[in-house]
Amino acid sequence: LDYQHVQVPFEITLWIMLASLAKIGFHLYNKLPSVVPESCLLIFVGLIMGGIIYGLNDKSPPVMDSDIFFLYLLPPIVLDAGYFMPSRPFFENIGTILLYAVVGTIWNVFGIGFSLYGICQVKSFHLQDVSLLHNLLFGSLIAAVDPVAVLAVFEEIHVNEKLHILVFGESLLNDAVTVVLYKLFRSFCEMPTIKSVDVFAGFGKFFVVGLGGVLVGLSFGMTAAFTTRFTKDIRVIEPLFVFLYSYLSYLTAEMFHLSGIVAIIACAMGMKRYVEANISLKSHTTVKYFMKMWSSVSDTLIFIFLGVSTIGENHEWNWPYICFTVIFCLIWRALGVLVLTFFVNKFHVNTITCKDQFIIAYGGLRGAICFSLVFLLPDFRRKKLFIAATTVVILFTVFIQGMTIRPLVDLLAVKRKRESAPTVGEQIHIRFLDHLLAGIEDISGHWGQYYWKDKLEYFNSKYLQKILLREYDQPKSSIVLLYEKLERKHAIELAEAGQLGHAPSHPSLLCSGFLCSNNDRTVVMDKKLEDTLNPDVLENIQEILARNLYRIRRTGPAYNRHTLPGETEPVERAKEILILRHKSL
Amino acid sequence: LDYQHVQVPFEITLWIMLASLAKIGFHLYNKLPSVVPESCLLIFVGLIMGGIIYGLNDKSPPVMDSDIFFLYLLPPIVLDAGYFMPSRPFFENIGTILLYAVVGTIWNVFGIGFSLYGICQVKSFHLQDVSLLHNLLFGSLIAAVDPVAVLAVFEEIHVNEKLHILVFGESLLNDAVTVVLYKLFRSFCEMPTIKSVDVFAGFGKFFVVGLGGVLVGLSFGMTAAFTTRFTKDIRVIEPLFVFLYSYLSYLTAEMFHLSGIVAIIACAMGMKRYVEANISLKSHTTVKYFMKMWSSVSDTLIFIFLGVSTIGENHEWNWPYICFTVIFCLIWRALGVLVLTFFVNKFHVNTITCKDQFIIAYGGLRGAICFSLVFLLPDFRRKKLFIAATTVVILFTVFIQGMTIRPLVDLLAVKRKRESAPTVGEQIHIRFLDHLLAGIEDISGHWGQYYWKDKLEYFNSKYLQKILLREYDQPKSSIVLLYEKLERKHAIELAEAGQLGHAPSHPSLLCSGFLCSNNDRTVVMDKKLEDTLNPDVLENIQEILARNLYRIRRTGPAYNRHTLPGETEPVERAKEILILRHKSL
Repeated sequence: LDYQHVQVPFEITLWIMLASLAKIGFHLYNKLPSVVPESCLLIFVGLIMGGIIYGLNDKSPPVMDSDIFFLYLLPPIVLDAGYFMPSRPFFENIGTILLYAVVGTIWNVFGIGFSLYGICQVKSFHLQDVSLLHNLLFGSLIAAVDPVAVLAVFEEIHVNEKLHILVFGESLLNDAVTVVLYKLFRSFCEMPTIKSVDVFAGFGKFFVVGLGGVLVGLSFGMTAAFTTRFTKDIRVIEPLFVFLYSYLSYLTAEMFHLSGIVAIIACAMGMKRYVEANISLKSHTTVKYFMKMWSSVSDTLIFIFLGVSTIGENHEWNWPYICFTVIFCLIWRALGVLVLTFFVNKFHVNTITCKDQFIIAYGGLRGAICFSLVFLLPDFRRKKLFIAATTVVILFTVFIQGMTIRPLVDLLAVKRKRESAPTVGEQIHIRFLDHLLAGIEDISGHWGQYYWKDKLEYFNSKYLQKILLREYDQPKSSIVLLYEKLERKHAIELAEAGQLGHAPSHPSLLCSGFLCSNNDRTVVMDKKLEDTLNPDVLENIQEILARNLYRIRRTGPAYNRHTLPGETEPVERAKEILILRHKSL
Repeated sequence: LDYQHVQVPFEITLWIMLASLAKIGFHLYNKLPSVVPESCLLIFVGLIMGGIIYGLNDKSPPVMDSDIFFLYLLPPIVLDAGYFMPSRPFFENIGTILLYAVVGTIWNVFGIGFSLYGICQVKSFHLQDVSLLHNLLFGSLIAAVDPVAVLAVFEEIHVNEKLHILVFGESLLNDAVTVVLYKLFRSFCEMPTIKSVDVFAGFGKFFVVGLGGVLVGLSFGMTAAFTTRFTKDIRVIEPLFVFLYSYLSYLTAEMFHLSGIVAIIACAMGMKRYVEANISLKSHTTVKYFMKMWSSVSDTLIFIFLGVSTIGENHEWNWPYICFTVIFCLIWRALGVLVLTFFVNKFHVNTITCKDQFIIAYGGLRGAICFSLVFLLPDFRRKKLFIAATTVVILFTVFIQGMTIRPLVDLLAVKRKRESAPTVGEQIHIRFLDHLLAGIEDISGHWGQYYWKDKLEYFNSKYLQKILLREYDQPKSSIVLLYEKLERKHAIELAEAGQLGHAPSHPSLLCSGFLCSNNDRTVVMDKKLEDTLNPDVLENIQEILARNLYRIRRTGPAYNRHTLPGETEPVERAKEILILRHKSL
């Protein structure tokens, strides 16, 4: 037996296997996941395993290595989140998200830090040796909402899109703030004296870390898109580039002390539309599937390790400090959301309701990022107290808040995610309004988001697409694309059947007798309506429409880490229309 | 800048990126890969890079770590090979393959070992300190044909299926022999005296190592199939199990000193049909695509590293030893193939031609396995000589033989792989003959391969499928499956269009007027032919058939590491038929 030789890969594989089997186990017993979030179950499995290891070896089980977490487990989850990010709601609410992520996080850090320092001054708590800087350092790691925990809970409760993106976007973008504040306070702790210059330099770093991350991410994303221009002959390695470039962007950002999370999100969002246009359909399926699979496994491993690492002798228990940490986390977050939303609502027509504010405050879950950061702290006397407090806050938020948020959402009747896809009419109106608003903004000289979106779209179609896409002269609308495809197919069919001579050559003539797909059918209907408004005819038309109208599927699928969006791909869509057409012949 | 922190994943990602970009580069310039095999180009890139590293640092570039090779780079390639192994030709020629792999390899090991020992006795060569055992040890590592190198060359020259499987199968299965002999001679080298018991025990180990590998592989494969029964609710992690279980089978086999390659092949071949039936179509695409991608990258990395590792100061040059190694490798392989094929041809009706024998002997390429094994040798005085000889043999076989084999195949007019798919008629005949031969073997009491295949199939459908498949009552034939699907679809269409009341209810009645797909059309045609044999009608039928006949695609796709088989999936196939049907309306 030669275990030493294969130990590393063997144990990694076994851990992944355990995680996957645990996942299967939960889903076999159907009722469990509908009551308890999967993250809680996984932590629970981890706790049991940690207990077993502790019982058998009589020493603390291995703690999740922070390097492993930040270098290997976190990137797949963030990549998946960035790649499947619904870009429209994200960019529509980018201002609010940034306010929550930057101002809100800073508010929480200082709020929690200062009030804990206040608690430390109470003599009977025996905490006088915890300095203000240490409290602020602790505040900087405990304040940030965790994207992994938020995702795990929010994807199961299906709140409305805006609410979801507000919490989720904040949890992703606050990474830049967390990185800066955490490193700032850490270096302050080691400095003999702190000058006011250092403090200002620290605040200036926000922009460097955040914008630097975006720049690194975008440049890698554009390179990835450019690379996939040339993969036509070797389709098999196409999916690789999506993963390689995203990972490189993350690592590069980390290397330069920028925000890796922001970088990988910018990379994924930047490359997505170009890569999708360049790679084959099967490569795309593989990319999507593998991203889902990878993030799902990472997520499972993180929660299991979180459970395992909780057991052991790393903790120093101090009731007041731990209890007040939990209380301050809740209070300062609630206050922050209230105050910030007050200002946001002043400037927006579409306000954030009180219920939504409550869910935003209540959904501020903490997770593995805090946990990894607290272990990364330099050794000092009270590190074990900080570890204990962090563990309690994580378990409290994931278990208590995570398990009660679903009943609360039900109870408050928070607006849910719309289940049905938007109709063609809605989609057309939305696009029309976008153009209209861009025009109004241009004329009025108010350069708002629609103006910039329009400019970006122009820049994209004028320059970027020509450089990054293999075939850049595609029609933009998927409806037009589909229609053209069907017309081509129809022409080929007619030609093969030898009927082309008799068939009308102009496409619009093909529409007679409801022969063509519903895109044209509306046109035909309009004509018919002009000709005759006989109620019998109308009823007939309505009946045919009800039977034949093809549903345009949701184009921006909602985010869910465990399942691929149930979108119909162009091929299937074409087939479906073909069947309907065939029927009406 | 914090490079230390991200160094490991960053450098790995960069190497993979380099490999992938090199691949894109070759394919951009179309003519290159059609003359020079990709493996040669990659080694060449590696040589250049090694030269650059050597020139800049003035020290030897890093050598490919044997652990990395055996634990991380080799498994994906072998898994891919096993998963896409065409099982019919493999099992039809299993006897011949095993003869080549076991007896042929032993023959080569001892032939090369003893004759090199003879060369060492010549005083003027200054090689008298190389003992017989060391020569045999060297023989054991240099004798084995390398699957990675064979695949890289043979998938580009498209020889006939039997020839391909003979060389490829041998290269895979000789791993068991190599493992045993290499470890045997290594331990003999360290023993003070060798007893004859040890020698016999060594030969007994062949069976343990080979059959043990098969057992380990099959048990993991069956477990994998069983696990995928329960993944219906979490489709996303389905592909993971295929990779995890295969890798575990490899690692477990390596841990017990069994043949990891044999184990992973047994695992992949064993699980394939059950896993494919259990997992979703998209999961399956992902599995196939990712396997291809992974093996393609591994393969690229191996050849690049091979090139990089060649440069440096690891070599001790001794003209006679190195030249005679190359010569003996060629001679003993040619002799072995000739002698073994003589016996094989005596017992087979379908003999191996002289041309095929030449290609089998000439296709005996050596590769990264020898290279890794020679670096794993314990340190002794002449290790550097062995490294030099191995490098030369690898470069000679990959460059000279690899580049000339394609022109030679053209020159000798070796029977090529059949390009067209077998017709329905052929497929039916093959299956019919299988059953017939199984029956004849049963009656005559000769328990040959057909008898055992039939028994295995019975065991499979009676027990294994019930345990391992989620829905085990599927019809076996894909034609039947497709037909049922189309009929269901047609019924739904008719029902939706409100025509079901008027339509004939029995499926065969639907066939009137060439309305249905070609499966029925043949039936209809037969009926029509009975009714009338008027030449005009016949011509008409033939024309319609030529236009409409749907080609049943190749069911057992040929092996190719770089591309996925261009099979049409059921959905697409259904669509194609639907179009044809629609046309004939």
